[in-house]
Amino acid sequence: MTTKIIVLSKLIEQGIQQFELPQKPNNLYGPLRYFMTLGGKRIRPVLTLMGAELFEVPAKNVLHASVAVELFHNFTLIHDDIMDAAPLRRGKETVHSKWNENIAILSGDVLMVKAYEEICKQKPEDLPELLTLFNRTAIEVCEGQQMDMDFEERDNVSIAEYIEMIRLKTSVLLGCSLEMGAIVAKANKADREKLYSFGQELGIAFQIKDDILDLYGDPEKFGKQIGGDVMANKKTLLYLLARESANNDQMNQFDALEKDTDLTRKVVAVRALFDQLRVQEKAKNAMELHRKNAMKALVEINVPEEQKSDLRELAEYLMTREN
Amino acid sequence: MTTKIIVLSKLIEQGIQQFELPQKPNNLYGPLRYFMTLGGKRIRPVLTLMGAELFEVPAKNVLHASVAVELFHNFTLIHDDIMDAAPLRRGKETVHSKWNENIAILSGDVLMVKAYEEICKQKPEDLPELLTLFNRTAIEVCEGQQMDMDFEERDNVSIAEYIEMIRLKTSVLLGCSLEMGAIVAKANKADREKLYSFGQELGIAFQIKDDILDLYGDPEKFGKQIGGDVMANKKTLLYLLARESANNDQMNQFDALEKDTDLTRKVVAVRALFDQLRVQEKAKNAMELHRKNAMKALVEINVPEEQKSDLRELAEYLMTREN
Repeated sequence: MTTKIIVLSKLIEQGIQQFELPQKPNNLYGPLRYFMTLGGKRIRPVLTLMGAELFEVPAKNVLHASVAVELFHNFTLIHDDIMDAAPLRRGKETVHSKWNENIAILSGDVLMVKAYEEICKQKPEDLPELLTLFNRTAIEVCEGQQMDMDFEERDNVSIAEYIEMIRLKTSVLLGCSLEMGAIVAKANKADREKLYSFGQELGIAFQIKDDILDLYGDPEKFGKQIGGDVMANKKTLLYLLARESANNDQMNQFDALEKDTDLTRKVVAVRALFDQLRVQEKAKNAMELHRKNAMKALVEINVPEEQKSDLRELAEYLMTREN
Repeated sequence: MTTKIIVLSKLIEQGIQQFELPQKPNNLYGPLRYFMTLGGKRIRPVLTLMGAELFEVPAKNVLHASVAVELFHNFTLIHDDIMDAAPLRRGKETVHSKWNENIAILSGDVLMVKAYEEICKQKPEDLPELLTLFNRTAIEVCEGQQMDMDFEERDNVSIAEYIEMIRLKTSVLLGCSLEMGAIVAKANKADREKLYSFGQELGIAFQIKDDILDLYGDPEKFGKQIGGDVMANKKTLLYLLARESANNDQMNQFDALEKDTDLTRKVVAVRALFDQLRVQEKAKNAMELHRKNAMKALVEINVPEEQKSDLRELAEYLMTREN
């Protein structure tokens, strides 16, 4: 992580700590206090702060909006964890596991409202534009999550559909985070759109990186079990790329492996098939394409190149991370 | 229903129909299209329109805010139905029954965002005040729902706690609905607060009426099964009033009846005990107290009495309804 990210993250942690929650009802706010301290990379709020700084506006001027995107992101995690029946998040119990599903639904709901409350602490003159962007993004994130759930029931998901799903589920929030900073900084519409594109394309690359790390990450650095997506038969980009170029024999092997209950053997065998089909290389090419799109959008933003160095370093960090 | 309510309801139905939802993903928006056509009394949006008209501002100027409160209310119903494991709503299947819980969580989430989107269609100058009120109210509604769930696990709920719970879960949204109309109408702070109080007190009376109707309603007019709350051992105001004044013998009878699996016999026996304890009378007194508080607040609002007639008639309608 770069020094700049660390500095901004500290500012955000202060912002999150200032975000006080009532004591009662404890079953509503206790889960939120718990979940917000699980940490995470705080990438989205860092983007909001950097989005303002890019246009020479101090990070503190957009701190509430940055906290808002982090709260919103955590709301989506709490609800997604219910939908995915996930027992763990960042190595700790998920809210619905530690409490129950009803509490996870309701504390997620209140967290979404809290996100709006934070946005509304920004200057009134910026609210219409901030909220228009945020509302649209929030809706798109829900659409992406629904597409992801729908894909579980389908066996004809195309790569284009998959990219559209991760664009909505993950990437638009990165674009939104950056653009919120740019809105408060009164950047012009063209630069705002470029910055949004940078975030969106970076987000797609980021998510593809996630898919690659899940199977090809370094077990010592990854922090989670390698091959989790394969074990769960998740339709990641790797899976779709493999299916796209598999011959009949390989397809039959995939079908058989999906039912294999020896999960260690399954991961090894699927990876061997993926290697035959050069899946990792293809996924890296796709990632690289979106990374390049992102960097192209960044270049086109009409501010001196030296003001873009923090965003360049953040992109570099996200693309080379190993967990 | 008064003519005025019918006229305003039609305006709201038009507003809701204008609220277009995308076709895709169909598992996200299909449930919302379904749920929004189940109807309901549309009391909350009518209040918003009347809140503006009270200060001589046309209903259409606050139509988006009124649709927003109705969307928000429906979001809470979709999520509450999951938490209550309710199979039916307005005689039709609930979203989680007709689809599944995950779809109900996510379509509820997107409906909440849609509510914010509608508010944001009001004039920018009104957004800070509208959103401050709406955010606070949304949080309180969640707190009320959590209290309601907590009460299920407790056997020492006081009547004061119960009233506080229904204030949060139900009544603040009525106050908010009215005050949003008053905000757009640029009413002064004192009148806005009185109007909010009117809605809040009316809401408490309305909810007590609900509790009474559940057991003492006319089976032919009520539309739902009489005694549903008793069958489910719900801690309604009737239940708490009965427990408050029951002697040891009566308390033992209540405890035994809670486990009775013959539900028809159970309802008859509980009602007989309630009658001994004059529970209906006491509940009506509590309802009347809050209704009077509401009417007192209405009187104090500084506009000519004749401009208050629609709100008076609406209150009268809500207090005399039989379903």
